[in-house]
Amino acid sequence: MDYNNYFDLNLEQAKQYTVAHTDFFGDEQANKLNVKEVSDGNINHVYKIDDGRKSLILKQTGKTIRTSGNPLDQHRGHIEDKCLEIQRKLSGGQVPKVYDYNETMHVILMEDVSEFKNLRYELKKEHIFPKFADQISSFMVNVLLPTTDLVLDRKKKKALVKDFINPGPCDITENLVLTEPYYDYRGRNVFDKSLLPFVKQNLYDNDILKANVAELRNNFMNNAQSLLHGDLHSGSIFINDSDIRVFDSEFSFYGPMGYDIGNVIGNLVFPYIVQKAYLKKDKKGNEQFIKWLGTTIQVIFDQTFAKMAGKYDQIVKFSFYRERHFKNQYLRSIKNDTLGYAGTEIIRRTVGDSKVIEITDIKDQKLQNLVMQILVKIGIKLILNRKVYNNGSEIVTDIDSIFNEMTK
Amino acid sequence: MDYNNYFDLNLEQAKQYTVAHTDFFGDEQANKLNVKEVSDGNINHVYKIDDGRKSLILKQTGKTIRTSGNPLDQHRGHIEDKCLEIQRKLSGGQVPKVYDYNETMHVILMEDVSEFKNLRYELKKEHIFPKFADQISSFMVNVLLPTTDLVLDRKKKKALVKDFINPGPCDITENLVLTEPYYDYRGRNVFDKSLLPFVKQNLYDNDILKANVAELRNNFMNNAQSLLHGDLHSGSIFINDSDIRVFDSEFSFYGPMGYDIGNVIGNLVFPYIVQKAYLKKDKKGNEQFIKWLGTTIQVIFDQTFAKMAGKYDQIVKFSFYRERHFKNQYLRSIKNDTLGYAGTEIIRRTVGDSKVIEITDIKDQKLQNLVMQILVKIGIKLILNRKVYNNGSEIVTDIDSIFNEMTK
Repeated sequence: MDYNNYFDLNLEQAKQYTVAHTDFFGDEQANKLNVKEVSDGNINHVYKIDDGRKSLILKQTGKTIRTSGNPLDQHRGHIEDKCLEIQRKLSGGQVPKVYDYNETMHVILMEDVSEFKNLRYELKKEHIFPKFADQISSFMVNVLLPTTDLVLDRKKKKALVKDFINPGPCDITENLVLTEPYYDYRGRNVFDKSLLPFVKQNLYDNDILKANVAELRNNFMNNAQSLLHGDLHSGSIFINDSDIRVFDSEFSFYGPMGYDIGNVIGNLVFPYIVQKAYLKKDKKGNEQFIKWLGTTIQVIFDQTFAKMAGKYDQIVKFSFYRERHFKNQYLRSIKNDTLGYAGTEIIRRTVGDSKVIEITDIKDQKLQNLVMQILVKIGIKLILNRKVYNNGSEIVTDIDSIFNEMTK
Repeated sequence: MDYNNYFDLNLEQAKQYTVAHTDFFGDEQANKLNVKEVSDGNINHVYKIDDGRKSLILKQTGKTIRTSGNPLDQHRGHIEDKCLEIQRKLSGGQVPKVYDYNETMHVILMEDVSEFKNLRYELKKEHIFPKFADQISSFMVNVLLPTTDLVLDRKKKKALVKDFINPGPCDITENLVLTEPYYDYRGRNVFDKSLLPFVKQNLYDNDILKANVAELRNNFMNNAQSLLHGDLHSGSIFINDSDIRVFDSEFSFYGPMGYDIGNVIGNLVFPYIVQKAYLKKDKKGNEQFIKWLGTTIQVIFDQTFAKMAGKYDQIVKFSFYRERHFKNQYLRSIKNDTLGYAGTEIIRRTVGDSKVIEITDIKDQKLQNLVMQILVKIGIKLILNRKVYNNGSEIVTDIDSIFNEMTK
């Protein structure tokens, strides 16, 4: 087969491509392999290929959104490959191994990590992972701080910034996360129409909030601080009782590290609030799960910054950056960003068009509306007070206060 | 001649290259043209070529520093060409016109603007330019604000950021301007040895200052705000009674616009302080010139930000960015950067190895030492108080106070 010109791989071609590009299956013939598609195939094709004993994942970065025919920049495949490679090395293996990447076919052949499960669905099932806060905080500190130019050779870092310029995916975030929830200029927000007065008052007409979101948006677009995952929500994290795996990094770019940390924290607020709402309504919430989630939100914030402060002292060598005055304002600015982007993530997943199952699965419309209002209020609180919070306990206290206030 | 492989053009080859790449001289033969080198040829060759009636400039970006043999990235030639083109358009002609750029030979053929004179030498001669503050403030506002993503299409801006990644020149600034004056790790600082205790106390051992310089350095390296000239000192600005021309933009990159504005302001402090010192010592300073310089420093600061606020309202269309709260903090942060980088420019030109003639031409060693101490104190004041100053008058008042305090 001719792989010198891009084409979409179908199931059969995926098997042939695999044996042509890796010796993962030894001398196995393509026709002895099994293949199934494990994504919806709308943007990328993701195939699982196995020989009955072992398996790998083939991910082909698509040229268009298949349902709409709109073009998408395939450079994001290159970016995903490079990000996987860098983050795997820095995290000590919490990212799947890449066996092969082909720049023409935009195909990544990578480790199958199906012994790990999608965190969002695990949380939906109210599964508790006692080690998660420790694992994800270590992951973030280990991949984020070392890619800054506080640590990395300055020329190497500039070359990475250049390679990771990622206009398509960033454009999506700049619109969907950092504009439209507050300014619905394309009419894509989705919520029950009875919520419109609430959304107007709290988001569309909230000038001081919009000015704060403008600061976060400007920072997202201009602050080339660290190599981000760029889309680190609960659906990009896979988990089991022993560890986590992080992937789907096609939104990766050089940006403010608080964006990744804020995404992780923000996405835990959905199951936390939804479960609390069920508990309040008819005692059907899972109290143990709620308690674990509250603690996890708190501990992720505290542990991430405690570990970052420690790692900073270990790996930042340049003397000016070791001055306490600089170090503390640097970490403070990351805390501010974290809370701001946790807020924008909560709001965009609530009123924006890219919802989370935690919300969409609430069948009782009245309860769903209440939960959405609580979430919007929490998001606003985090954004406007992002420079104030010192620790995770203060954050969870405020989340609880808003919940109690709005459900009394 | 074969221009498909790079080689250094000598005087004769420069003429042949010119007729082969532009019809500027019509049907003129190369051997009818005159040529002379107008640079020292150490890093770049700059030739002036004329036919007795009209002339142009040929600038070839060199492959090495000829005196040391150290390699230099020739991509800066591409960057200079692109910056000239963009800034010429935005400034309405305050930048020389480029007739041709060749990516292989790294040669720019451009307008000869020799009816304008080097501002640094004009200031050395105590020439007064009443329109300069108005001209340079307009220039900066016109070229800086429109290249931000507050104005420019976001994808276009990201493509420009990528094209203008400029590791070599930025590395020089990061070392020479933003590190070594405070931390002489390569032993390149230059000052009379009697000043060492002063330099140690005020710079090398000044932890709070170093932490502040660290913030400015981090901002320089990470804040891809606007397309900068990158080296906008008085030697990059040419002037006559009617207008200015700005060129030599091979340090251009996407960075914080306060770096350019601060360079302009900082470089005016040298002749201001030196003339004041001569006046104080033996009444030989030029009072009228001093008065004009003080006013010019003040007016450049005030006019730049007044014009920027006005232009902002005209060209920033995105509603969030038009919120007063955002706009004012955005302009405030540029003011802070401006004063910080004015301070680092003053200090690096004083104790660093890249001196200005205003200082080196002071023959009286004692007076030179005093001037250098005053300048260091002014630089420190501007850096540490950068978030405090509201207008140009406050800045000049503090400069005068330091001068008076240290010469009484």
